[in-house]
Amino acid sequence: MPPANFDTAIYAMLLGFFINVAISPFVIPFLIKLKFGQNVRDDGPKSHFVKSGTPTMGGVMILFSFVAASLFFLRDNRDGLMLIFVTVGFGLVGFLDDYIKIVKKRALGLRAYQKIIAQVLVSVIFLAYLRVEDSGYFGASFSEIVMPFVRGVKLDLGVLYYPFVIFVMIGTVNSVNLTDGLDGLASGVTLLVSTFFIFMAFAAGSGSFPIVAAAAGSLLGFLLFNAHPAKVFMGDTGSLALGGLIAALAIMLKMSLFLPLIGVIYVIEAISDIIQVAYYKATKKRVFKMAPIHHTFELSGWPETKVVTLFLIVTAIACLVGFLGAKPYL
Amino acid sequence: MPPANFDTAIYAMLLGFFINVAISPFVIPFLIKLKFGQNVRDDGPKSHFVKSGTPTMGGVMILFSFVAASLFFLRDNRDGLMLIFVTVGFGLVGFLDDYIKIVKKRALGLRAYQKIIAQVLVSVIFLAYLRVEDSGYFGASFSEIVMPFVRGVKLDLGVLYYPFVIFVMIGTVNSVNLTDGLDGLASGVTLLVSTFFIFMAFAAGSGSFPIVAAAAGSLLGFLLFNAHPAKVFMGDTGSLALGGLIAALAIMLKMSLFLPLIGVIYVIEAISDIIQVAYYKATKKRVFKMAPIHHTFELSGWPETKVVTLFLIVTAIACLVGFLGAKPYL
Repeated sequence: MPPANFDTAIYAMLLGFFINVAISPFVIPFLIKLKFGQNVRDDGPKSHFVKSGTPTMGGVMILFSFVAASLFFLRDNRDGLMLIFVTVGFGLVGFLDDYIKIVKKRALGLRAYQKIIAQVLVSVIFLAYLRVEDSGYFGASFSEIVMPFVRGVKLDLGVLYYPFVIFVMIGTVNSVNLTDGLDGLASGVTLLVSTFFIFMAFAAGSGSFPIVAAAAGSLLGFLLFNAHPAKVFMGDTGSLALGGLIAALAIMLKMSLFLPLIGVIYVIEAISDIIQVAYYKATKKRVFKMAPIHHTFELSGWPETKVVTLFLIVTAIACLVGFLGAKPYL
Repeated sequence: MPPANFDTAIYAMLLGFFINVAISPFVIPFLIKLKFGQNVRDDGPKSHFVKSGTPTMGGVMILFSFVAASLFFLRDNRDGLMLIFVTVGFGLVGFLDDYIKIVKKRALGLRAYQKIIAQVLVSVIFLAYLRVEDSGYFGASFSEIVMPFVRGVKLDLGVLYYPFVIFVMIGTVNSVNLTDGLDGLASGVTLLVSTFFIFMAFAAGSGSFPIVAAAAGSLLGFLLFNAHPAKVFMGDTGSLALGGLIAALAIMLKMSLFLPLIGVIYVIEAISDIIQVAYYKATKKRVFKMAPIHHTFELSGWPETKVVTLFLIVTAIACLVGFLGAKPYL
């Protein structure tokens, strides 16, 4: 049973939830009014074009309620502060991208190299924080990560830890971004993933666990409007912010190796996209009907809600297996 | 953090899930083949008639996987055994009802008095078990129940405890039954409610917590096929069984007063139905467009998935508040 002060996480979650729900009647009409009704990505199935009236950039609601709720739980909490920095940092990159797409009507937003530079920049600041403030969670030193299921085996990456962290950050952020293509998919999967990490942060003894809980609560509120049929999309503002949060937390807790397990959906989405692009470049043929893979399910006749249900349930099972993998450390 | 042996719950949940998923390719076609494609309740909105090809009695899958997974966790576990008895008992009542509706094509199944007698019978056996095997969880004696949020205040119902237990059993079972009217609604809400009670059973020190986890896992598997668009409905077989499980567990743990909080959706569904019927009998007018209340949302233009999302999120929030209510006892 969660010990006494675990209830802090519940208060943070409730706060994140209610703030998000409370601001939504003001923010959603605003997003619509400012013509933030972005055309749905040009690379999606045709059935999605009916959605072009739905506003995007709902990520600003997630960011606002997350930060506002977090403020109540920041006392002497450097981990938490750093998580907020990373989340808002990536959120800003996403915001710029969304803003250029929508307001400047430039279909593809920021240029790829601009996006990558900005993402690397935020990641490097995070890495510098880790270098200075090594938390040593689960007995792992700065350049070590723990092994799921097997306590005692730690992986020491030495100097390779620096590029490793950057890779995990950028990889996760862009995988969450790719996952954000169906109503409630990225928000639902990330709600489950962040709930898993609330327990992990708590178990590690990091003061950041209520901050993660605030994000989970905020996502629960967002799902009210983002679940099928969505009234608002999170946009890159949301997906980059959430990816940054999850990646930074996992790295901070020395649990990077849990990420591909708990976030198996992110991984599948990203790998399907990479395979598709690489194979197409080499052969001019496609492996999947459409990438990322959730579109392939749709084009195979699956209703959108069924794909989302499957991906959510896979994530729930992955979280359960993740708990077993974390058990040696609890 | 859940202590060491809490992982038993995770194994039970995984087992319940995988058994249910494994049997579904055999059971669902069987339910269809035997013409278990019940006509959707005559009292639902017209848009539901398109669903008349969907088989019902999916509750048999839930029951089978729940019992099969539970068998691995029954050592010296009288609470767990009793929960299985109650669940299967109510499941059988529901099965008879479904069977008569579908195979005998008698639109309303068992007669009301038959259903009530059978339900009271199962409840009385459960009550007798409690009388003999009083568990005294949370320091409450046989006729006492604990108060959410306020430790130390216990409600001693004395001789009124007997009718109280019967009332809670019958009330919960029939409320869950009323809730089962939209794709994934009763299964999703009960997944969350049962997950809450896994923690509570564990905190109380009852050996039944893996049994509850097996039910939660089984429901997670069922949701793969029951979420919108549903390939199978649970039928009364499922809803009566689940209602019996939840009610018996709450009563066993002396946590009956948590039920209307955690199961607020069941309560709203039941009360809306009662108000509608009572008001109509008195005035020949209706309070709601259609009862139970999920149909009113639908008739007001809400898509089915939006109603289900709202009700699930309300339940999730109720569970978080329930944890706060349970905190003084942890």
